[in-house]
Amino acid sequence: MKSVEVCFSPDLIHFHELEGKAVVVVDIFRATSTMVAALANGVVSILPFADLEACKAKQAEGFLIAGERNGLTAPGFEMGNSPVAYLEGDYTGRKLAMTTTNGTQALEKSKGAAEILIGAFPNLQATVSYLQKLDLDVLVHCAGWKGRFNLEDSLYAGALVKSLESTHLADEDGALAMKSLFEREGHQLKKYLSKASHAKRLQNHGIESDIDFCLTLDVCDLVIRLDEEGFLVPA
Amino acid sequence: MKSVEVCFSPDLIHFHELEGKAVVVVDIFRATSTMVAALANGVVSILPFADLEACKAKQAEGFLIAGERNGLTAPGFEMGNSPVAYLEGDYTGRKLAMTTTNGTQALEKSKGAAEILIGAFPNLQATVSYLQKLDLDVLVHCAGWKGRFNLEDSLYAGALVKSLESTHLADEDGALAMKSLFEREGHQLKKYLSKASHAKRLQNHGIESDIDFCLTLDVCDLVIRLDEEGFLVPA
Repeated sequence: MKSVEVCFSPDLIHFHELEGKAVVVVDIFRATSTMVAALANGVVSILPFADLEACKAKQAEGFLIAGERNGLTAPGFEMGNSPVAYLEGDYTGRKLAMTTTNGTQALEKSKGAAEILIGAFPNLQATVSYLQKLDLDVLVHCAGWKGRFNLEDSLYAGALVKSLESTHLADEDGALAMKSLFEREGHQLKKYLSKASHAKRLQNHGIESDIDFCLTLDVCDLVIRLDEEGFLVPA
Repeated sequence: MKSVEVCFSPDLIHFHELEGKAVVVVDIFRATSTMVAALANGVVSILPFADLEACKAKQAEGFLIAGERNGLTAPGFEMGNSPVAYLEGDYTGRKLAMTTTNGTQALEKSKGAAEILIGAFPNLQATVSYLQKLDLDVLVHCAGWKGRFNLEDSLYAGALVKSLESTHLADEDGALAMKSLFEREGHQLKKYLSKASHAKRLQNHGIESDIDFCLTLDVCDLVIRLDEEGFLVPA
């Protein structure tokens, strides 16, 4: 049986072994949810950037550019970090260059893993099925909020651990704890996560519909992986 | 109403504000449990050290010296990190110099807080009552295991958050998550924590009786605080 473990912050990732593992990067509000929305709605690939300026420079090469800092669209960018924007517009065939406060940094720090996937509630089950076929040990890498533990990424980790239980043993402390948490709170995801500090920050930005998308399970039959050239693409 | 938050690792403590808060340092297996056992059984004060050699040097000044690394008594030390050893021996009136793998490092990184307390299951309720009189915001600082999240410290954090709920609001993500976890698993502490990676490490060392002590609630009516000279003493 393979194993599954959870890392709660990019600032703790150096305590976890990456080599030979499938790392699932999670930033529920909203980077990884937005990636799922974009690739499920016509965008062909996403090039992630940790740095704002490097991301913006890709516009000259025809990329659609998405930049977010602290929950808001960064100055000079076409897109922010709203998944719903991709459901509403038509971005068929576009390549996207994207940078966000937490999510793209977690992705950067996952390099060295055998496989890097993007996890979000809308494509949970698709990701589970893919991981079960892949047959590697799994590490869930939560982006957190500016280095800190956050509730929504952790609860997704719990959902993934729970969904993998027939193939991946949760005998690591983070995985055990989040599986218990999901067993307790998973039936009322939206209600429970409305208490989360980040959800409150987002509510202040008036983006209830984004939160709804981010917390909706299994509406996209899509697995996203980082390819050899550094693009996020459907698997 | 005051607030309560949880930090899961000394490597994340720089993301939390310490100033003006009561910080409760937690290292259930076994540093903080051992501190409670020692001070509840005759030891008059504990001088914590992050460094082994500095700790050992205190023997020349008449201190009883306790040193642990990776679960074992460090070479040349009188005591390791076993709480039960203090229940069995007679250490009345002794001053203790102590260093452990995780616990004393977390203590070191808590400096700057308004008040620093030592938390363990055997003195949970005493600590809760003291915090409620103190009337400061509370930060639970989990020592973790070599920088990583661990189950026993986190579950103690949940127990503390739950016990403080009449006076301290848990609206921070770590506190919310651990409160839920404790509500689900707190009724079967020993059974649940027997799955924890650190409990398994300790079982390999043949110290079941230590684990039993560490997971027994409210047998010591004792609050431990760090005083102005850097000694841990009964409050």
